[in-house]
Amino acid sequence: MKADLLIHSAAQLCVVPSHDGGPQRGHRLGDLGLVEDGAVACADGRIVAAGPTAEVRADWQAAVELDASGQVVCPGFVDAHTHVVWAGDRADEFVQRVQGATYQEIQARGGGIMATVRATRAASVERLANESRSRLDRMLAHGSTTVEVKTGYGLSTACELKMLEAIDALAVSHPVTLVPTFLAAHAVPDEYGDDPDGYVDLVVEEMLPAILQSPISNFQFCDVFCDEGAFTLAQTRRVLEAARDLGMGLKIHADEFRPLGGVALAVELGAISADHLVCTPPEEIELLGQSETVAVALPATPFGLAHRAYTPAHAILEAGGALALATDCNPGTAWCESMTFVIALACRTMRLTPAQALVAATLNSACAVGLGARVGSLQPGYDADILILDLPGVQHLGYRFGGNPVRQVVKQGRLIQASL
Amino acid sequence: MKADLLIHSAAQLCVVPSHDGGPQRGHRLGDLGLVEDGAVACADGRIVAAGPTAEVRADWQAAVELDASGQVVCPGFVDAHTHVVWAGDRADEFVQRVQGATYQEIQARGGGIMATVRATRAASVERLANESRSRLDRMLAHGSTTVEVKTGYGLSTACELKMLEAIDALAVSHPVTLVPTFLAAHAVPDEYGDDPDGYVDLVVEEMLPAILQSPISNFQFCDVFCDEGAFTLAQTRRVLEAARDLGMGLKIHADEFRPLGGVALAVELGAISADHLVCTPPEEIELLGQSETVAVALPATPFGLAHRAYTPAHAILEAGGALALATDCNPGTAWCESMTFVIALACRTMRLTPAQALVAATLNSACAVGLGARVGSLQPGYDADILILDLPGVQHLGYRFGGNPVRQVVKQGRLIQASL
Repeated sequence: MKADLLIHSAAQLCVVPSHDGGPQRGHRLGDLGLVEDGAVACADGRIVAAGPTAEVRADWQAAVELDASGQVVCPGFVDAHTHVVWAGDRADEFVQRVQGATYQEIQARGGGIMATVRATRAASVERLANESRSRLDRMLAHGSTTVEVKTGYGLSTACELKMLEAIDALAVSHPVTLVPTFLAAHAVPDEYGDDPDGYVDLVVEEMLPAILQSPISNFQFCDVFCDEGAFTLAQTRRVLEAARDLGMGLKIHADEFRPLGGVALAVELGAISADHLVCTPPEEIELLGQSETVAVALPATPFGLAHRAYTPAHAILEAGGALALATDCNPGTAWCESMTFVIALACRTMRLTPAQALVAATLNSACAVGLGARVGSLQPGYDADILILDLPGVQHLGYRFGGNPVRQVVKQGRLIQASL
Repeated sequence: MKADLLIHSAAQLCVVPSHDGGPQRGHRLGDLGLVEDGAVACADGRIVAAGPTAEVRADWQAAVELDASGQVVCPGFVDAHTHVVWAGDRADEFVQRVQGATYQEIQARGGGIMATVRATRAASVERLANESRSRLDRMLAHGSTTVEVKTGYGLSTACELKMLEAIDALAVSHPVTLVPTFLAAHAVPDEYGDDPDGYVDLVVEEMLPAILQSPISNFQFCDVFCDEGAFTLAQTRRVLEAARDLGMGLKIHADEFRPLGGVALAVELGAISADHLVCTPPEEIELLGQSETVAVALPATPFGLAHRAYTPAHAILEAGGALALATDCNPGTAWCESMTFVIALACRTMRLTPAQALVAATLNSACAVGLGARVGSLQPGYDADILILDLPGVQHLGYRFGGNPVRQVVKQGRLIQASL
């Protein structure tokens, strides 16, 4: 049969099987479906075969063949939690933080999320899209073929709609598949500083309907930052229930700094993911383990902040939970565009094996954004989002750090000319 | 006047001045000699001018001009401590470590330094050079234009000489400037397991003379791993004094795991650098601060091991010490080829500002390998080892992490076509 592209002779082909269309869970996490001397064929942007080179070649011929001898072939990374659309930067704040300034001091000097909100409000749609495009270029060059992206630097109806426009402009013009999430409940804007509940009213009564009525809206998820200094559990419930009633899938930022009960709420409301989970209490980890909600760990964030506590991955796995990884790419705590760095960090700080981290960064993160039946695996029928890594084995993925092992990116069957 | 290459219009040109031909010390560390809208010109492989674009352009014309608008121009990185020449890998050991194996358990299974010694002993000079060449390629692509490299995976006279041959083959064929260091006292080989002093005899009486008599020897430094599980202070003194008597410069691995007094010894013997210094006692930091010995911090090593303690940079600076940075690139604890990652790590774990970290990674690390009057600065007369970073300001160097901001590498005036 005729394929468009055939990658063959990989030292290790990682199929990353989804046994039931869902994420790999608990102690099963880490099943790579490894094939030595493996090949993958694709046609019309989809995987049509994956297995031993001899078998795939017996069935398929392709116009373009790539020799992956001595290299690893795996699914493209799915970055399940990012804030990659923003304007400006907060490098000065980083320098203050290194010199010992507290978050409160930085906020008092005009820093923190509100600094990015001001820059994003001041930027045109074009500037917002262009600044973000270069970040997506680098993410793609580092192997991320699907990227979730949140609003939440607008915090007014008009400016959240502007973020939606920028996301839409990128979605139609950039090879990366974008999964947009509505996060107006990211911070209370200055103009509602005395009246956070009034801002929640605005989100629920005006923004959510407005955003869903926009002709370019493609939001699938609504997210809330439920934490000390952000939104209370009651405010979070109000926003998420309203979003659920409008048919949206739900996500939550929970337990990054203080445990407020966000994971229990996420499980109760059937959220597709609960993210951060640095200080989640054991009883909520148990609830999570018994639920369908995917735990998304974001180790670049404590790393970026030089904090010592990371998501307790093994407790989540032992409870039977499904674990995913993402960069949390954002201008405050973690300007990180590389999923391979997140994997190297997860191996060290969360004690994942490279195989567990690779599944968490592909199939499981696909499940965390509702795409577990379409991306994150090299099973036939999945999108042909494929990486060739210049590594002799998967275990090198966490072992080496600081570089970019991605030699070739294939997006929906097309060879990407990586431009850093 | 005529130059070969002129880089102009840099948002920030970082000259990194050496005020007295030595490193920047104590609280002076971090003087970038920053020029906005800056330019640098070079001829015959050396810097001939650096300053405001208008001034440099008024004096110099060049066949090749590069526009660095919106970017940072700085000296090439000097990686002052690496073990980049080795054969094989220890990825399996990394996976065991992630799963909780102790270093003793890994050693009992045949892992640790001796695993690399066996692979290096078994490799031909060609294989050793070729495996290492790809690492140097990536180091150069990440901005390292000068790299120190140690022996110490041979641990026999013949095999240490083989490592010397591989280093020589790379030195004459690779654009990176290599600074070779003799480190036969890296570990006690298995065949001397019962008689470490016998191995020290071999190093002092046979290896040192043999290695210095080799026609290709270009060793400038002798190093000893002085730590628990490696060499005692008395053994270290014996090797370093013998090397000093033969006219070599001295280096030491000290206080990575246990403080054995190595820093005081290094200061006493006038070592050019003392490296690691994770658990150095305050009184030895005081001695270091009053000496000419450069402190080389290697934050990728505790990061690689997921340890929590890092070199106490501020204590060293407060004592008046000179601080440098290096990758420690090695197959056991830190397979890291990126000095920009080391900078990002140093900002977070050692609380250096990006400016301090950049000086530590250029001028000060040049001083740690005896090249402080030749590389690590863009002052006229220095080698034209220059980086263009795709960053709008130096503070972005530590702020962003996980990627490679190096857009262009210039080595001794030549544009390098980076091959990852």
